[in-house]
Amino acid sequence: MSDMEAQGSIMALNAIDELETPCIVIENGKIDANIEAMAQAAARCGVALRPHAKTHKLPELALRQLAAGATGITVAKVSEAEVMAAGGMRDIFIAYSLVGAKKINRAIRLSLAGVRLIVGVDSLEGASRLSEAALEQGTVLEVRLEIDTGLHRTGVSANAAIALAKQIAALGGIRLSGIFTYRGAMLAGASTLDLQAAGHEEGRLMSEAARLLRDAGIAIEDVSVGSTPTAIYAAEIEGVTEIRPGTYIYQDRMQAAFGVCSLKACAATVLATVVSRPADDLVIIDGGSKTFATDVQPGHPPLYLQGFAHVVGDPEAVLARMNEEHGMISVHPSSAYRVGDRLRLVPNHICSTVNLHNAVYIVDEDGQSRSVPVAARGMLE
Amino acid sequence: MSDMEAQGSIMALNAIDELETPCIVIENGKIDANIEAMAQAAARCGVALRPHAKTHKLPELALRQLAAGATGITVAKVSEAEVMAAGGMRDIFIAYSLVGAKKINRAIRLSLAGVRLIVGVDSLEGASRLSEAALEQGTVLEVRLEIDTGLHRTGVSANAAIALAKQIAALGGIRLSGIFTYRGAMLAGASTLDLQAAGHEEGRLMSEAARLLRDAGIAIEDVSVGSTPTAIYAAEIEGVTEIRPGTYIYQDRMQAAFGVCSLKACAATVLATVVSRPADDLVIIDGGSKTFATDVQPGHPPLYLQGFAHVVGDPEAVLARMNEEHGMISVHPSSAYRVGDRLRLVPNHICSTVNLHNAVYIVDEDGQSRSVPVAARGMLE
Repeated sequence: MSDMEAQGSIMALNAIDELETPCIVIENGKIDANIEAMAQAAARCGVALRPHAKTHKLPELALRQLAAGATGITVAKVSEAEVMAAGGMRDIFIAYSLVGAKKINRAIRLSLAGVRLIVGVDSLEGASRLSEAALEQGTVLEVRLEIDTGLHRTGVSANAAIALAKQIAALGGIRLSGIFTYRGAMLAGASTLDLQAAGHEEGRLMSEAARLLRDAGIAIEDVSVGSTPTAIYAAEIEGVTEIRPGTYIYQDRMQAAFGVCSLKACAATVLATVVSRPADDLVIIDGGSKTFATDVQPGHPPLYLQGFAHVVGDPEAVLARMNEEHGMISVHPSSAYRVGDRLRLVPNHICSTVNLHNAVYIVDEDGQSRSVPVAARGMLE
Repeated sequence: MSDMEAQGSIMALNAIDELETPCIVIENGKIDANIEAMAQAAARCGVALRPHAKTHKLPELALRQLAAGATGITVAKVSEAEVMAAGGMRDIFIAYSLVGAKKINRAIRLSLAGVRLIVGVDSLEGASRLSEAALEQGTVLEVRLEIDTGLHRTGVSANAAIALAKQIAALGGIRLSGIFTYRGAMLAGASTLDLQAAGHEEGRLMSEAARLLRDAGIAIEDVSVGSTPTAIYAAEIEGVTEIRPGTYIYQDRMQAAFGVCSLKACAATVLATVVSRPADDLVIIDGGSKTFATDVQPGHPPLYLQGFAHVVGDPEAVLARMNEEHGMISVHPSSAYRVGDRLRLVPNHICSTVNLHNAVYIVDEDGQSRSVPVAARGMLE
């Protein structure tokens, strides 16, 4: 591919020539830079960094985040917490309401095994279930109350939080130690200034919620906010104590579209092979919706995403359609793609893309790649 | 859930009360009915039935399709073919162009091991690679030429097929035995009449392509067409010899929207738990885009799909938004959903939904469920 050669990306392709496609290739050097940048941003703001492990789903990368200064990790499922605990993590926040008895008992087992385990709650019903199970096991579970700062997903408003927090504080077997939220960038526009405003708003809403709760006599220690696009701005607000970004370790095309990073900072790309060139303006690759996540779609925020991935070295190419095993790329009619060419693509959303792959290939600076099973992939429980 | 009780679906929920959510539950009786209906339709039209295994990805269900009269199976990847061969399949069509040397050699190994293996081709470049590898191994691979009948994905036009088929026929190591196409329902409207017209068109285009090739001296034995929505109509056209539907074994909400089946015929549902009820008109379940595929989106064909799944027993509920672990269901403010309730949902697209799950639970008529690992899940190579 002469286009790609011209842009210097052919070296990495040569180095990974032996890999079967489609697969995810991760550049180790870029991970290091991304980990370091977020750790420094957190340190600068004086907040704890508790990365969400959903992006990589790999204990070895969580350990590297800890080594760079993270105080613990975040997951969404008890099954993910189990994988991460088995991989050496000792401070895990399940930022999700556990409702089922089996899940709650699994969480308690982790806690009894010596993990500092924190669980999200956003309802009295959910908190009561945690309370009963913990009392039965003779232990105390640490919980954080989820605040809705505008996403209208889970969580309660700052005002509703006061009554609920009092009820939770009255339950045995659980200890309410903090509040958390996820707001993301979807409410913001697409520019860095918008993100700054959105992050500041997120931080202010949480700081204010903590104040209201403390005024009501609830001891709130941790005030925890998301997310890769908003965390560093939210962290600037007095009263925020912790950030939980996830995507930053790899970055992705959505983050680049938000202005959070450059496309070159994206550590994870999909390597795919051209299997057909049925027309001058159409290239078919061997990866479709089983290879690239479709949960961040063209036409949804961030609005100027065209297609499902960025083709490295060919910014005009558009991965416009996908079936499960086919990716249909609109290309310039004069472009030189041939059957057998290997392309690299930056997916729109890397977290859900990683979840589709049993393994990823981590490539070192020397060009050697290593297959790493995605240990916490497909953990739904 | 009083709504669901009223509709009689509570019995199945009781029977699977012990399952952790989110998970896929499959009703065995419905599978039997769906397998039988398609087998009878194929027999009625006098065509061979070669189901696409991408829907279930389970050797045991492929064997049941064979027992009901299927002549072989279809897959998209050599890795899927390997799983299916290990599960007892002896007649496998990889309806996909194999381009990489490793993949081609893996296909040849299956062929040498006694599997009747057929491989798709749609370019001279691809055919030459197969030819060279087969000659090197001293064997002959059976291939089918892919015809584009309007989807503009892979495949060549009937006219272009003549020259290409002659070139392929001149290569050693491969034997061109047939032609195939995939058209699907996306080109059709949404009514049964539209599908009938689309299926007839697909059959006529393929029958005509076979005639052109035979007139040019190419011996075409197999004329193979898709798909769950169009297969039974395409099969009515003289000259079509084989159909390759996949989804029919489970059916899904997209097929129901196309008018192919009723929602009650859908054998596979997602079982999920309500984890939050943050507002009267909003219910949050513990499954999002890691649980439900997003490749068939609201607002795309079939156009009257609202949301990402149908909530069994509550047709007004809309699974309107998803993040990876959260499903946001808009509900009637008076509905009685509570934290801890378990719901069943029919996903828009079951094939890509199954691909997200490490296992499915097959429930027999006696209500006993059995976990079955999705053996060919995540096979990308």
